[in-house]
Amino acid sequence: MSIAFQIEKTNGKARAGRLLTPHGEVETPVFMPVGTVASVKGVSQDTLEELGAQIILGNTYHLYLRPGIETVRRVGGLHEFMAWPHAILTDSGGFQVFSLNELRKVTEEGVTFRSHLDGSTHFFTPESATEAQIGLGADIIMAFDECTEFPADPQRMRDSMELTLRWAARSKKYFEEHKHEVPWTSSDRVGTAARPCPERAERVEWGRPAERSSAVTPASWRSTAQPKAAVPAWSDQTQTLFGIIQGGMDHGLRKESAERTIEIGFSGYAVGGLSVGESRTVTREIVESTLEHLPADKPRYLMGVGTPEEIAEYARLGVDMMDCVLPTRAARHGLLFTSEGKISIKQARYAQDQGPLDPRCTCRVCRRYSRAYLRHLYASNEVLAQVLNTVHNLSFYLDTMRRVRHSI
Amino acid sequence: MSIAFQIEKTNGKARAGRLLTPHGEVETPVFMPVGTVASVKGVSQDTLEELGAQIILGNTYHLYLRPGIETVRRVGGLHEFMAWPHAILTDSGGFQVFSLNELRKVTEEGVTFRSHLDGSTHFFTPESATEAQIGLGADIIMAFDECTEFPADPQRMRDSMELTLRWAARSKKYFEEHKHEVPWTSSDRVGTAARPCPERAERVEWGRPAERSSAVTPASWRSTAQPKAAVPAWSDQTQTLFGIIQGGMDHGLRKESAERTIEIGFSGYAVGGLSVGESRTVTREIVESTLEHLPADKPRYLMGVGTPEEIAEYARLGVDMMDCVLPTRAARHGLLFTSEGKISIKQARYAQDQGPLDPRCTCRVCRRYSRAYLRHLYASNEVLAQVLNTVHNLSFYLDTMRRVRHSI
Repeated sequence: MSIAFQIEKTNGKARAGRLLTPHGEVETPVFMPVGTVASVKGVSQDTLEELGAQIILGNTYHLYLRPGIETVRRVGGLHEFMAWPHAILTDSGGFQVFSLNELRKVTEEGVTFRSHLDGSTHFFTPESATEAQIGLGADIIMAFDECTEFPADPQRMRDSMELTLRWAARSKKYFEEHKHEVPWTSSDRVGTAARPCPERAERVEWGRPAERSSAVTPASWRSTAQPKAAVPAWSDQTQTLFGIIQGGMDHGLRKESAERTIEIGFSGYAVGGLSVGESRTVTREIVESTLEHLPADKPRYLMGVGTPEEIAEYARLGVDMMDCVLPTRAARHGLLFTSEGKISIKQARYAQDQGPLDPRCTCRVCRRYSRAYLRHLYASNEVLAQVLNTVHNLSFYLDTMRRVRHSI
Repeated sequence: MSIAFQIEKTNGKARAGRLLTPHGEVETPVFMPVGTVASVKGVSQDTLEELGAQIILGNTYHLYLRPGIETVRRVGGLHEFMAWPHAILTDSGGFQVFSLNELRKVTEEGVTFRSHLDGSTHFFTPESATEAQIGLGADIIMAFDECTEFPADPQRMRDSMELTLRWAARSKKYFEEHKHEVPWTSSDRVGTAARPCPERAERVEWGRPAERSSAVTPASWRSTAQPKAAVPAWSDQTQTLFGIIQGGMDHGLRKESAERTIEIGFSGYAVGGLSVGESRTVTREIVESTLEHLPADKPRYLMGVGTPEEIAEYARLGVDMMDCVLPTRAARHGLLFTSEGKISIKQARYAQDQGPLDPRCTCRVCRRYSRAYLRHLYASNEVLAQVLNTVHNLSFYLDTMRRVRHSI
């Protein structure tokens, strides 16, 4: 068993369900906070738990550069490394290679790119990107794809889509041959990461998944909670590989990409290549038409979107999973999402405003602090501004998705 | 009543006691985390409560520049502004004027200095610094002093000490004439800061002081918890002014400064002008000899020290209160205090170290994260590095002081 997906309710096109992963249960539709380099910027893991985050996203490109795949693999994977015993998804690095590298060079074999940190040259292939993701050990990993730029002419869109299809097949082949190398199922790992602290025992209390689904005890508890002899029971647990639909802004190509990706066969399907400069109307149309060609019984993941209104809308269209840097990145720029609309907290008009950021929000920031204080923290360049702003924005996104789920 | 100080136990020169302030009780000896601009850098107020901080320090100089005294005063003072219903102490700004301003100009009247933010010119006098501190509304405020530079010749040390004594008298005179202007006792304030959120009701649950000493209900709960008619019962509560002993590194001048400051009469006495470049041996000698001249029944505050070993030592010498930026500032540079000594977490040797930062520490950082993860966060310049490092260092300082207290 790698993951299981159960749809519990539908309402129109929308679906409410559950993803069972080796590291706990995820209620869908779900918004996944982005933890680029093994940290959701400014937010500690216990705060993420308090916010109700059940799955977070890690970026393979960033983790490959820092701290390096081997460092993470050796300690048992990303869950163990960042002390997050719940579900994790990693992207394949394809999008970052596309968005952070002006000088990338794409060939049939893979992509040569330069590190945004030190300019050093690296090479990703479907095989090496999958190998990296197996080393990181996220519950859900992504096929290596080419994110088609926007705008692109019809021939370019087709060529790019075809390349992504060939890469999808190579990703899957490599995954099937190597999936048992995931660090949390290899028995040689047990004991290597044991710490002389009471940490893991306490994690069981913190861990929401353990309360809800004892069947999927997080692997990171295993090494101390269970004797070594118990390991074989886990060795049939592996990661899950999702395929990615491309095809630019062309409905026909999207349909073809969906059909041929399904033919290769994955446990879930993502819609990639959106939010790259096209209008929101176009995004929505492509999402809606692409979803029609995806199997109803598999999770559907829309990559890299969007505003609170948009994620609610996409969930109603039948998307099960979404991620976006918007809530965390906007928070760092003092842009806060509220039930009354977007607020730019840096504005002088809030300097004396003793009201809460969002009177309808019950997050720990809105319960305690005033707009005047948040404005002061931002204006004074205090680190706490980023921390509190991010906590609120994530809370707003996660609440939004919970409300959508309940309405289904 | 402004504050009350009870000594419960002594052991040699050391004293264990309780400070009762208008915003709750403080167990002494106490370490006060520094919240420069109304924020202990990177740490939220509920985390400070969780760490057991009972009193924090605000810097008048910084708050005067940003967000400005009037902004804080209008909302009812610093407690209300930063949502910290527990005790607060503010310094007078004298030390920052000394340490952040190469171009300051000292006259009998006061100090002209330039803002470190925009170079604008400002003027602090004992009266204006006290007025500012009344506007901020901390429970304990400090007389305006001149921090004598080190080294200084005998005449300069005497002149500076004499100036501080004249300023102490002026600070006290201004305070006595204006102490009822503190924003949390002025009835015109009631209602102006009411927020349409459930915040204050919840604060009662969070607020440790409320659990322990119902006699000193934090003033910040008053405006919603009690009808306006109840205000007069509070109007006899004011802030408390402490005097500051100067006299450079001269034992005779320190004695004279102590005696003449006591003659002016304050509710507590601080030892200032230390940790300005002298050796630790000299600091210790000056502290020890100065304490001999301070009244046993009043709180003694040693300003701006020190390492964990030093604060423990000073407490054993009979100091009741200390503050220092070291735990918070060192944390930002990846320097962490542990039971096994100081650790520079940036070092490559920790890259694979799965052990906790400090195996004997029970803070939330040591319980959950590995040295390898903390090293990665620091090396990757992640904001969470500062947050977690600061939480640990503060926890280590507060634990150190709690242990000293229990040993008395």
